[in-house]
Amino acid sequence: MQRKDFSVMTCPIARALDRVGEWWSILILRDAFAGMTRFDEFQKSLGIAPNILTSRLNGLVESGMLERHQYNAHPPRSEYRLTPKGEDFRSVLVALFAWGNRHFMPDGATMQIADTQTGQIADPIMVDRATLRPLTAPEFTMIPGPAADANTLRRLAIPGRQGLLPTNQVTPL
Amino acid sequence: MQRKDFSVMTCPIARALDRVGEWWSILILRDAFAGMTRFDEFQKSLGIAPNILTSRLNGLVESGMLERHQYNAHPPRSEYRLTPKGEDFRSVLVALFAWGNRHFMPDGATMQIADTQTGQIADPIMVDRATLRPLTAPEFTMIPGPAADANTLRRLAIPGRQGLLPTNQVTPL
Repeated sequence: MQRKDFSVMTCPIARALDRVGEWWSILILRDAFAGMTRFDEFQKSLGIAPNILTSRLNGLVESGMLERHQYNAHPPRSEYRLTPKGEDFRSVLVALFAWGNRHFMPDGATMQIADTQTGQIADPIMVDRATLRPLTAPEFTMIPGPAADANTLRRLAIPGRQGLLPTNQVTPL
Repeated sequence: MQRKDFSVMTCPIARALDRVGEWWSILILRDAFAGMTRFDEFQKSLGIAPNILTSRLNGLVESGMLERHQYNAHPPRSEYRLTPKGEDFRSVLVALFAWGNRHFMPDGATMQIADTQTGQIADPIMVDRATLRPLTAPEFTMIPGPAADANTLRRLAIPGRQGLLPTNQVTPL
């Protein structure tokens, strides 16, 4: 698949997308969080062609999301473990999980996150780590960072636009 | 690009990925949140070929993420607005934004979310909406939903595995 190189874009979303490559990579990361480490586990879970799986695993190792550890020398066999950067991708997967559950499971959820004590089903939302306040405007705002370029400044200057932030009239993230 | 149909998978993450299609669709949604509505605005922002942009916009309309509104009859011109389902994709973009900012901006952030009152830079994390508690094990756990199939049950039965949930020894999501 030919596509533009998103890594040169200044937007953190574009760069994030560039590093995880494509859907297979995200589903491999999902399976790594589920405890899978070996080639045949990923292959069985995903029903993916071996050459594609090899290429995606190599890509995730190169971009620093997975680490390869050889667990057998003859024949050589490796397992793949999440790095801290890979571990940190969790929040993206939880956001995808919650959004998928809300919109694309017409027959009901297959998996849910539950409070161990009360059994209540959790509804994941994003808040600020320090204050636990929902990330809504006007309490929060998008501002240029130290490395903002002209394009970023232009985007942020559109009046009345809070980009990713909803107003507090809207259900929080 | 030929790929497997993820919509038949029972995992909400796989279905979510199926609906947003690919990177261009996610970046179009990002630009829609930034206030863009018109073909030429998206095209200028993304530097994307017109035929690809048309196909991605049509895909986002078909999957119910964007709505098309004709704003000019002669010549026919349309604008594209986020539907509630599209609006709800915000949390995924914020998670991608935060992860991209943490790992792929070696020259510093180009954009940040700031507290309007204090100027403090926000650090987005995911918590449970009702209790505002971080989604960590053992306080929370992944359980089968009403539509769980055998494959889901098998995945959730692996001992010691909390899938997407970190333990509370780890920095929350």
